[in-house]
Amino acid sequence: MATTSSLVPRVKLFGVPYSVCTSRVIMCLLEKQVEYDLQLVDIVTTQDHKKSEFLKLQPFGMIPILQDKDFSIFESRAIIRYIARKHEGQGTPLYGTSNKDKAMVDQWMEVEAQNYNPAIAPAVWNLVHAPLFGQHGDPVVANASIEKLEKVLDVYEGVLSQSKYLAGDFFSLADLSHLPFNHYLIHEGKRGDIFDKRPHVNAWWKSISSRPTWKKHLSVAFPGKKFD
Amino acid sequence: MATTSSLVPRVKLFGVPYSVCTSRVIMCLLEKQVEYDLQLVDIVTTQDHKKSEFLKLQPFGMIPILQDKDFSIFESRAIIRYIARKHEGQGTPLYGTSNKDKAMVDQWMEVEAQNYNPAIAPAVWNLVHAPLFGQHGDPVVANASIEKLEKVLDVYEGVLSQSKYLAGDFFSLADLSHLPFNHYLIHEGKRGDIFDKRPHVNAWWKSISSRPTWKKHLSVAFPGKKFD
Ligand SMILES: N[C@@H](CCC(=O)N[C@@H](CS)C(=O)NCC(=O)O)C(=O)O
Ligand SMILES: N[C@@H](CCC(=O)N[C@@H](CS)C(=O)NCC(=O)O)C(=O)O
Repeated sequence: MATTSSLVPRVKLFGVPYSVCTSRVIMCLLEKQVEYDLQLVDIVTTQDHKKSEFLKLQPFGMIPILQDKDFSIFESRAIIRYIARKHEGQGTPLYGTSNKDKAMVDQWMEVEAQNYNPAIAPAVWNLVHAPLFGQHGDPVVANASIEKLEKVLDVYEGVLSQSKYLAGDFFSLADLSHLPFNHYLIHEGKRGDIFDKRPHVNAWWKSISSRPTWKKHLSVAFPGKKFD
Repeated sequence: MATTSSLVPRVKLFGVPYSVCTSRVIMCLLEKQVEYDLQLVDIVTTQDHKKSEFLKLQPFGMIPILQDKDFSIFESRAIIRYIARKHEGQGTPLYGTSNKDKAMVDQWMEVEAQNYNPAIAPAVWNLVHAPLFGQHGDPVVANASIEKLEKVLDVYEGVLSQSKYLAGDFFSLADLSHLPFNHYLIHEGKRGDIFDKRPHVNAWWKSISSRPTWKKHLSVAFPGKKFD
C-alpha cells in the first residue's frame, strides 16, 4: 500500500481491506509502523481463496494470510500477536509491557473471539452485508444478535469504568480487534445506540475509532466516504 | 490436588476436572510442572459460578479462573498462554522456543478455537452430555456436527503428514487444547472411527492421549474408569 520503496523486503498481506479479519491485521501493522504490501484476493467473483495455490497457504480457504519472507501465517488473531511480538520495541506497545499485561490482552482477545464476535457477526451480516450480496437480511436474527451483544457490552461497561481500555490503561490488540465489526454495526447498520447508551463503552469507542491509524485505514478501504 | 506442602504459594484453579475448559488448563499445569490447588465450583446444583463473588472474578459466569497470588485471569486459552510464558524454562516447552514457533502455536490454537471447537462441541453435547443432564440428544445435530468436524480433520490429516504435531515437531498448547473434546467424542460418544480412518490424525491422537500427564488427569477426573 505504501508508495516508498525500501531495501528491506516488506511483509505481504493477502486479503481485502473491507474484510473484518483483514482490517484487524492492517490496523495492527499501522500501529506497529510495519510497512506492508497488500495483495488483493478476489473472494467474490473469481474466488481465488478457494484455488489450490491459495489453499497451500491457508487450507481452510480464508483470508487473511501474512507472508514474512518465507514464513507464512494465517488466522487474524495469530497474525497480530506475531506482529506485536516481533516488533515489540516499535510503534504502539499493543501487547503491553509485562507478562501480566500480555495475559490481560490474551484474556480480552479471547472474549472478543468467543463472546463478542459470535454475538455481533449475525447482526452485521443481516443488517449490512446480506443486502450487499443480494441476499435477504433477517431482522429477527439481527435482533437476537443485538440482544446477545448488549449482554457482552454490559460486561464491557463495567470493565471500562475501571480502566480506559479492555486490558488496562493501554490501547492493545484486544481493543483494535473490535474496530471492524463495531464500525460496520454503527456506521452501516445504524445501531450506534447500543454503544451511545453505555457511557464508558461510548468513550472507549470514541477513543479507539478516532486513532489516526484507523482513520487512515478507513480512507483507503472506503475511499471518499465520511464517517462521523 | 497435589499432597506435598510447599512454602511457595500455589496457584489456585477454579473449575471442575471433567469440564473441557478446566481440563485444558490442568493439562497445561501438569506439563509445565506447576503445582496448583483445584477449587471445585458447583456449576450444576448450587451454580456458584453465577453468584456475585464469582462474577467479580469472571463477569460472564463461567469456569475456569486461575488465581496466581493477587492476579486473576479467566478464559482457558489465555490462562494456558500465561502459564506457558511465565514458566518458559520449566517442563515441556509448550509455546515452542522461537517467535515463529509461537506464531504457529497461536495459529493452531486459533484453528482449534474457531474451526474445531464449534464443529465438535454440538456432537459431544448431543451424544454425551445432554443425556447425562436428563436432556434429549438430537442425532441430526450430532451428525451435522460430525460432518463439519470431518472437514477439519481432513485439514489436520494433511498438516500431520508433514509434522508430528500441529504447530511443528513439538507438543504444544495447540495439541493439548484438543485433548478434552477428542476424549469425550472417542470414549463416550463412541465416534473414534473418524480419527481411526485418518492415519496421521490417528497417530497424533495416540501420541498425545498416551502422555503420562493426560493419563494422570483422567485418573483424577474419572476415578476408577479405564480408557483404552
Ligand atoms: N478465524 C479467521 C476467520 C477468517 C474469515 O472468516 N475470513 C473471511 C473474511 S473476514 C473469509 O475469508 N471469507 C470468505 C469465505 O469464507 O469464502 C481469522 O480470524 O482470520
Ligand atoms: N471460552 C471460555 C469458555 C468457558 C466455558 O464454556 N465454561 C463452561 C465449562 S467448559 C462453563 O462454565 N459452563 C457452565 C455455564 O455456562 O453455566 C474458556 O475457554 O474458558
